[in-house]
Amino acid sequence: MSNLRKTVAIDMDNVIANIEEQMIIWYEREFGVRIDREAMRGIPEGDAFPDKDAVYRHIFTAGFFRTVPVMPGAIEALQRLMLKFDVYIVSAAMEFPLSLYEKYEWLQEHFPFISWKNIIFCGHKGLIHTDYLIDDHPRNLDSCRGKAIMFSAMHNLNHTQYNRVNSWPEAVALLESELENY
Amino acid sequence: MSNLRKTVAIDMDNVIANIEEQMIIWYEREFGVRIDREAMRGIPEGDAFPDKDAVYRHIFTAGFFRTVPVMPGAIEALQRLMLKFDVYIVSAAMEFPLSLYEKYEWLQEHFPFISWKNIIFCGHKGLIHTDYLIDDHPRNLDSCRGKAIMFSAMHNLNHTQYNRVNSWPEAVALLESELENY
Repeated sequence: MSNLRKTVAIDMDNVIANIEEQMIIWYEREFGVRIDREAMRGIPEGDAFPDKDAVYRHIFTAGFFRTVPVMPGAIEALQRLMLKFDVYIVSAAMEFPLSLYEKYEWLQEHFPFISWKNIIFCGHKGLIHTDYLIDDHPRNLDSCRGKAIMFSAMHNLNHTQYNRVNSWPEAVALLESELENY
Repeated sequence: MSNLRKTVAIDMDNVIANIEEQMIIWYEREFGVRIDREAMRGIPEGDAFPDKDAVYRHIFTAGFFRTVPVMPGAIEALQRLMLKFDVYIVSAAMEFPLSLYEKYEWLQEHFPFISWKNIIFCGHKGLIHTDYLIDDHPRNLDSCRGKAIMFSAMHNLNHTQYNRVNSWPEAVALLESELENY
């Protein structure tokens, strides 16, 4: 029966991990300035910050990924999806190799119900075949051979060519409706 | 043109990284006893060692994967394969999460010509679709949707149901002959 279940690949950054919020927190901690999330609308994430180099530096600093806040509703959503789908965490983490273990530990802390067997850290996602991919980045969604679902992030709001969900309740509703239509 | 190239997934442990030799080296370092590689023939790797728990402990010790010797001929073979194939390193590293960064660093040291974009660390390999998979473990080869190629290791010598190569020159010859027949 397990082999008949549909597979869902779920991205980490900006999908289950609230990277936008973490950028704002780390920036405020260093500069004492809280950037409004609205300033990130429709532009690359780092561009909303007066000191872009600082954001880039934060991303490569130990602890950044380890302490990122969980996206609202993500834990409950994944637990629910796992009842009906084979759920995989697929993160293009190889660009930030120091984050590999941090991301693993973060998953162990917040998503302990996800087996290590269902975690994939890669460079790009073109070889990973699942029935669905939930991701915030067009470059990942474009290489998906299953159904691509764009998870809204401030940086991707101008893209209109994808199936879009704005929250975890919306994502669960979309995937569950797929099962009904299948 | 790049999209038309065949893809090859290459395992790390016992394929480009000489884990058998590393087990023998670490065992001898602790116990002063050098186990003959022939003792590993046809049995699970750790079983050849009088103290199996020690081998298991070594695998989970920092530095084990970082200092593993390179498999003879692997560097030259991958450089040659990359002329004609899209080559990916695909390691089921998630079982040993502390090894994630060590494996990345090891690849950077010995295979710097492999881009981080072409590295995948996963739990199991069932979702990774390539035209070829070179691996020593039946469980990985069985889940391969492309052509499975068993790289000989002492522990897998009793398996007869796979295409087998005994060395890197043999593996290159097999893959290059596939291109001629394509």
